[in-house]
Amino acid sequence: MSPVPDLCVLGLGLIGGSVLRAASAAGWTAWGATKSPQDATAATSDGFDVSTDLDAAITRAKDVDALVVIAVPLPAVDEVLRRITTIHPTAKLTDVVSVKAPVAEAVSRLTPDARYVGGHPMAGTSTSGWQASTPTLFHDAAWVIASEDDSDPEVLQEAIRLALATGAHVIPASATEHDAAVGRISHLPHVLAAVLATVGADGGPLALALAAGSFTDGTRVAGTRPELVQAMCEGNRSALLDAVDDALGRLGAARGSLASTGGLAKTIEAGHQARQALENHQKAPRKNKDIDLDSPTAPKALRTLGARGGRIVSLDGATARAQTS
Amino acid sequence: MSPVPDLCVLGLGLIGGSVLRAASAAGWTAWGATKSPQDATAATSDGFDVSTDLDAAITRAKDVDALVVIAVPLPAVDEVLRRITTIHPTAKLTDVVSVKAPVAEAVSRLTPDARYVGGHPMAGTSTSGWQASTPTLFHDAAWVIASEDDSDPEVLQEAIRLALATGAHVIPASATEHDAAVGRISHLPHVLAAVLATVGADGGPLALALAAGSFTDGTRVAGTRPELVQAMCEGNRSALLDAVDDALGRLGAARGSLASTGGLAKTIEAGHQARQALENHQKAPRKNKDIDLDSPTAPKALRTLGARGGRIVSLDGATARAQTS
Repeated sequence: MSPVPDLCVLGLGLIGGSVLRAASAAGWTAWGATKSPQDATAATSDGFDVSTDLDAAITRAKDVDALVVIAVPLPAVDEVLRRITTIHPTAKLTDVVSVKAPVAEAVSRLTPDARYVGGHPMAGTSTSGWQASTPTLFHDAAWVIASEDDSDPEVLQEAIRLALATGAHVIPASATEHDAAVGRISHLPHVLAAVLATVGADGGPLALALAAGSFTDGTRVAGTRPELVQAMCEGNRSALLDAVDDALGRLGAARGSLASTGGLAKTIEAGHQARQALENHQKAPRKNKDIDLDSPTAPKALRTLGARGGRIVSLDGATARAQTS
Repeated sequence: MSPVPDLCVLGLGLIGGSVLRAASAAGWTAWGATKSPQDATAATSDGFDVSTDLDAAITRAKDVDALVVIAVPLPAVDEVLRRITTIHPTAKLTDVVSVKAPVAEAVSRLTPDARYVGGHPMAGTSTSGWQASTPTLFHDAAWVIASEDDSDPEVLQEAIRLALATGAHVIPASATEHDAAVGRISHLPHVLAAVLATVGADGGPLALALAAGSFTDGTRVAGTRPELVQAMCEGNRSALLDAVDDALGRLGAARGSLASTGGLAKTIEAGHQARQALENHQKAPRKNKDIDLDSPTAPKALRTLGARGGRIVSLDGATARAQTS
């Protein structure tokens, strides 16, 4: 079992700020840096060890071999990685960016000697900034930890430990598996909500006056700040294209069936069964399972757990206590 | 001003049953008929004047020139109209079916001498049957009244009066305008929810485990009983095809943009603006407006009101008190 590491959080928006708050609340020694003087001042006055000096924060991480969390938006990741490779090229690294393969690619390109394990806490998109951050943002949230065959065992355990310390449960998956899944259940919903909202509003005031719960629910996330949605979706371009193509194919099939036979049974029935699958997953009884994180096959065992819909709920030394359906 | 008519409700499921309950609670003399002996027994023991004898109910409507409400599912409308044209061909007719042009077509085909004004109270799809009916189902709901240039003025007023008596507000529109609007804001959302649920569940247990609020919200109505959704969507085939084609076009454009430039700005921005339009519509300050229902131009004035997102909230004699944004 690795000891609790010190924590260096780079980027202090909603997610990074909440990581700093949650880890501090859990007793970790943690500090951070942000480019925003306002956020640094606010965080400092909230009692946190924060400055605008990224290099100093990384140097301190090097001195104590801290776990470094990259918590900037995807377009700013390269710039942060260049500072890390200059100051501390073998840093223990994780991140909280909403796509995993593009970050892994940037890490192998810019900081090839870093010990990197990707992460993605699935909480919060509609507000932003340090002021919106809370220590409880991740309570009961899913936090994906990227588990690859060559994942550094120490950093893998520390990233899991961090996620659990914030109150999240850990869902292991490879970067590719993660991106494919979130393309389907997070990014595609945003694209479809935008399309639905637009087609509805094109019906004019009468359509808006008749808008029922189906429309209100189906367009809710179109109310999210568009620049956040755009960055999230565009960052997962490749996997999102696959999901959009699936949706186009299914919607086209529904269109063809409705036009030719007037029938929608296949579309509606499949959708109903899929929704039942979601509800069944959420209420399925769970079995306990232990995974030895010191084992060389741990990354594969973790991915198998995640692929089956399982999760890690606690750590006991190097033993991950998991629940699976 | 027409006096309050007596009311004959044919079909006593969720909607018809709730109409009978609400009109009775408002002091109307009302009776009904249903093909279901169980529902007739339940309604009778609940204190309502209900039987399984459709012909007797129609004969009584003829004797007192009652307003007849067709409250059976679309596939059963023809059969009811045939009984009406046999017993009382000049009946005052309205209906509560979720599409309007197909019902209007059936009426002109089967009961051409009836004085028909279509209606659609927009409430309730996920439960069904007399047992689910309540007198408050239509409180604050939108109730569309089909307003055509040749609408019978007396029945138009009585249909509006009935809707208001149940606690609904009235949104006037032509049958064609109604069907186009609900295709966009009620039927398309159900089709997209089915497609989204299926594409998500195709991602397997990992995707379901990561399902965020965007997916849960966007697929909620896929949990509705599929036979209800199917009947509702298929009944509005022509208008729904237009809406699906719009959605396919916009989703295809998003796909093309994402594939070629990697950008989704146009899709996401348009969706955000459309959602803002919905929220602005819902909170817009409303101006009062009176419409004289005895005027020969009343149907046109009503359609203009509806097309602008307005609604009728009360009747004072033959004067409709309307709110418009």
